[in-house]
Amino acid sequence: MKKQLDKPFPPFTAEKIAKYLNCPFEGNGKTIIKGVSSLEKAKKGDLVFSTQRKFRKSLENTRASAAIIPTSKTFSRITVIKSENPHLSFIKVIELLHHPELPKPGIHPTASVSPSAKIGSHVSIGAFSCIGDHVEIGSRTIIFPLVTIYPGVTIGQDCIIHSHVSIRSSTEIGKGVVIHNGVTLGSDGFGYVKEKDGSYTKIPQIGKVIIKDNVEIGANTAVDRAALDSTVIHSGVKIDNLVQIGHNVKIGENSIIAGQTGISGSVNVGKNVVMGGQVGIADHIEIGDNVIIAAKSGVSGNIPPDVIIAGYPHQDIMTWKKIWASLSQLRPLIKEVKRLKKRLEKIENKEK
Amino acid sequence: MKKQLDKPFPPFTAEKIAKYLNCPFEGNGKTIIKGVSSLEKAKKGDLVFSTQRKFRKSLENTRASAAIIPTSKTFSRITVIKSENPHLSFIKVIELLHHPELPKPGIHPTASVSPSAKIGSHVSIGAFSCIGDHVEIGSRTIIFPLVTIYPGVTIGQDCIIHSHVSIRSSTEIGKGVVIHNGVTLGSDGFGYVKEKDGSYTKIPQIGKVIIKDNVEIGANTAVDRAALDSTVIHSGVKIDNLVQIGHNVKIGENSIIAGQTGISGSVNVGKNVVMGGQVGIADHIEIGDNVIIAAKSGVSGNIPPDVIIAGYPHQDIMTWKKIWASLSQLRPLIKEVKRLKKRLEKIENKEK
Amino acid sequence: MKKQLDKPFPPFTAEKIAKYLNCPFEGNGKTIIKGVSSLEKAKKGDLVFSTQRKFRKSLENTRASAAIIPTSKTFSRITVIKSENPHLSFIKVIELLHHPELPKPGIHPTASVSPSAKIGSHVSIGAFSCIGDHVEIGSRTIIFPLVTIYPGVTIGQDCIIHSHVSIRSSTEIGKGVVIHNGVTLGSDGFGYVKEKDGSYTKIPQIGKVIIKDNVEIGANTAVDRAALDSTVIHSGVKIDNLVQIGHNVKIGENSIIAGQTGISGSVNVGKNVVMGGQVGIADHIEIGDNVIIAAKSGVSGNIPPDVIIAGYPHQDIMTWKKIWASLSQLRPLIKEVKRLKKRLEKIENKEK
Repeated sequence: MKKQLDKPFPPFTAEKIAKYLNCPFEGNGKTIIKGVSSLEKAKKGDLVFSTQRKFRKSLENTRASAAIIPTSKTFSRITVIKSENPHLSFIKVIELLHHPELPKPGIHPTASVSPSAKIGSHVSIGAFSCIGDHVEIGSRTIIFPLVTIYPGVTIGQDCIIHSHVSIRSSTEIGKGVVIHNGVTLGSDGFGYVKEKDGSYTKIPQIGKVIIKDNVEIGANTAVDRAALDSTVIHSGVKIDNLVQIGHNVKIGENSIIAGQTGISGSVNVGKNVVMGGQVGIADHIEIGDNVIIAAKSGVSGNIPPDVIIAGYPHQDIMTWKKIWASLSQLRPLIKEVKRLKKRLEKIENKEK
Repeated sequence: MKKQLDKPFPPFTAEKIAKYLNCPFEGNGKTIIKGVSSLEKAKKGDLVFSTQRKFRKSLENTRASAAIIPTSKTFSRITVIKSENPHLSFIKVIELLHHPELPKPGIHPTASVSPSAKIGSHVSIGAFSCIGDHVEIGSRTIIFPLVTIYPGVTIGQDCIIHSHVSIRSSTEIGKGVVIHNGVTLGSDGFGYVKEKDGSYTKIPQIGKVIIKDNVEIGANTAVDRAALDSTVIHSGVKIDNLVQIGHNVKIGENSIIAGQTGISGSVNVGKNVVMGGQVGIADHIEIGDNVIIAAKSGVSGNIPPDVIIAGYPHQDIMTWKKIWASLSQLRPLIKEVKRLKKRLEKIENKEK
Repeated sequence: MKKQLDKPFPPFTAEKIAKYLNCPFEGNGKTIIKGVSSLEKAKKGDLVFSTQRKFRKSLENTRASAAIIPTSKTFSRITVIKSENPHLSFIKVIELLHHPELPKPGIHPTASVSPSAKIGSHVSIGAFSCIGDHVEIGSRTIIFPLVTIYPGVTIGQDCIIHSHVSIRSSTEIGKGVVIHNGVTLGSDGFGYVKEKDGSYTKIPQIGKVIIKDNVEIGANTAVDRAALDSTVIHSGVKIDNLVQIGHNVKIGENSIIAGQTGISGSVNVGKNVVMGGQVGIADHIEIGDNVIIAAKSGVSGNIPPDVIIAGYPHQDIMTWKKIWASLSQLRPLIKEVKRLKKRLEKIENKEK
């Protein structure tokens, strides 16, 4: 858990917030801060932040009462709080002012909870949620209404599981995990053996899914269980909506995967990898640490650490950009070669 | 609501239907119409429609008893109704003959409805659906079984919300909206700030989702709430299945988005835009009115109004087609240049 | 149903398992087999299989007690069972040793089952599942908790329907079908007619979805109902997660479709077709039998039987590979042509 800051009480003034953030301020410290806003939509009483180069211009037009700005900048029309990381400081103010409405602890009388389930303290289980045999749920975890947790699942402390999530049997979930609506964890991997008559026999998928601490998984994403071992999502991984994670995949710590990306079976993704949206990774590929994969790339071979790739088939991003730049020259080139050929023929004919 | 036509009573004859459509007919007006069908599957008693150039051929082989055809055409083997827009007229006949089986008004005794929710007249709420605090639902709206509506949501009149939909807190939905199964509205946008240790801190997503009138959203689609302001889907927008709409996106009136397309955060889509399937749009892009984006395009820059684009990286569709046409000439071109080089060398050697 | 093998009783020895598989063994037949494993994770008591060329190396390092190996191979460090198809034999052993934990027959007291539904013998219906009017469910079929089955659906024997599945009205499902979590079957097809004012009028989707025997459908996939006729998934088809199947599509027997692929309306897919992940198929396309479509391909024209295609726009896979190989030569080619032009000019100048 993050270190708790010493929270001030309302009414919040610019001075109080600056002190809370451990940042200096300039201007009227008595300015009342009622909320946060984007630069465009801000009204009186709002706090905004700006890190933009053209931040002066963006601030000139805002109706906000105060702004968090980079330490190196100055601005005098409104009260400013100076931060080394204005965005992070702004997030801390959001967390101070906004408390997401979460269900209260307690098991809803309509929930179907197995007598063999072990439920921690201050857990919330919503209406019509189904908790299977031998499930374990850690303290303060929130299960929204209409969630299905199959038998043998373990869920750590301080998790949030939204409505219409399915967590299939034997899945293991760490602490502080957030799972958005409609996610399926632990569905069967896609594995078949072809028979002589052309039909497919299913390979039983008897492995499981392990989700480590502080992972977040976006709406309607699916993570398949392993055939024999485990599909593993390591700590701090952030997965967007509608992503497909195949069986036996491993995703390294603090990697981040944007929407609609698909990772085929047995892929091994390193740490701190960043994948754009709609990326596709073929099965059994190894992706090194710190790799960045541009949106819509199709990866069909191993990727060494610390590179940026793009395209399908994937290439080093600079190569890919050069190829696409040169493509526009292909048609003129075809014409040029025809012209050269004629000129050459002319010379050849003379020589005869 | 559309103007109600003056509906005839059964048995429906070709004459009655023609009158209902305000269209002329030719042939036997007493022909009984029992149903509608495709040209291929039609049987006696069915009405079909044809707008095809080769419509004569398609009608020759049908077993339908009557057809709606363009005003400019003639056909005498079966009874025909002549319409300026045969497809639209056919839709009106489907609506006349087919009444989708919808749940009856009333709140199912098992539904979990907050006492603070305001439910309009003739609303249907299905079994095990959960309606949170301070939710407002307009008259005649149908909530199927097993739907979750988080606190503070407002839903207009005459909406249809199918099973396993999640509508997260503070979402605003207009009139006549249809939401298919498994949709998530208002899940957190995908926003993080990277810390020095490589981990990500979540940017609280405190904005909301606004869906205007007559929008339709396909199965298992996800629409994220804004970070601070609103993600807005304007009136008349039609979204297909498994689409991803990121935070702070705006989609203009009457735009249409095919399946599995992904729109990244803060994209601004104009009016009357058409996107094919599996399109991807990078974040913060502006797409002008009336733009058409071919399936599978990857858009990474702003698009002016009234253009047709394709490809990844995206290009004007004609340019894209020419590039792909010329690509097949690349290999012969490489050989041709080698040959020209040899011929040139031969001449150069002679000159020495 | 498959022919039942004559199952041995525990404790399972290598000899007993070999006999059960009708395969010869070499080494100590008394070796106790407690479980199955991958080569890497195997421990004492585990059975593994190896079909790899470098299978000797893979077996040298395993801690497994026994292995299933190809008939042509020999290996003496551990007990081996020799099979003509080691993977299929291994699957049979998994099925012998592992019994997936499935819900017991019986209707959960909280389930909402219409009095007009016909439920077969030994059916399981989970908590809070909703079974509509006139639904028919075959013997031994398992409906997990929180499933919605709309009115008029028929489901055959020995099916498994996981939590949070929506099966819309009039869908017909055969025998032995497995449907994973979050799937939507029978949502409206995506069909509209554009009005003069730019708005869209919905084309009523009054057809249905037919799923034949032994089909498996992955998590969060959506299959739309036909406009007038039927969307048909034929016997033995296997569909992965997050796939989109449009209205009026037909998928032929034993075809296999990987994750996040999208098939547009009225596409006709042959038998034994294999599609990789994230493939997109434009509407009204015909795909012949035995076609293989590489991942991420975009198909916009008919495909004859027995070909392998790749790319977008799609091409014969060999052509596609050659084009991509030649692309890296484009930039040097542009330079080469410039050099040739200069050399030609030099000669031309001399000739003057």
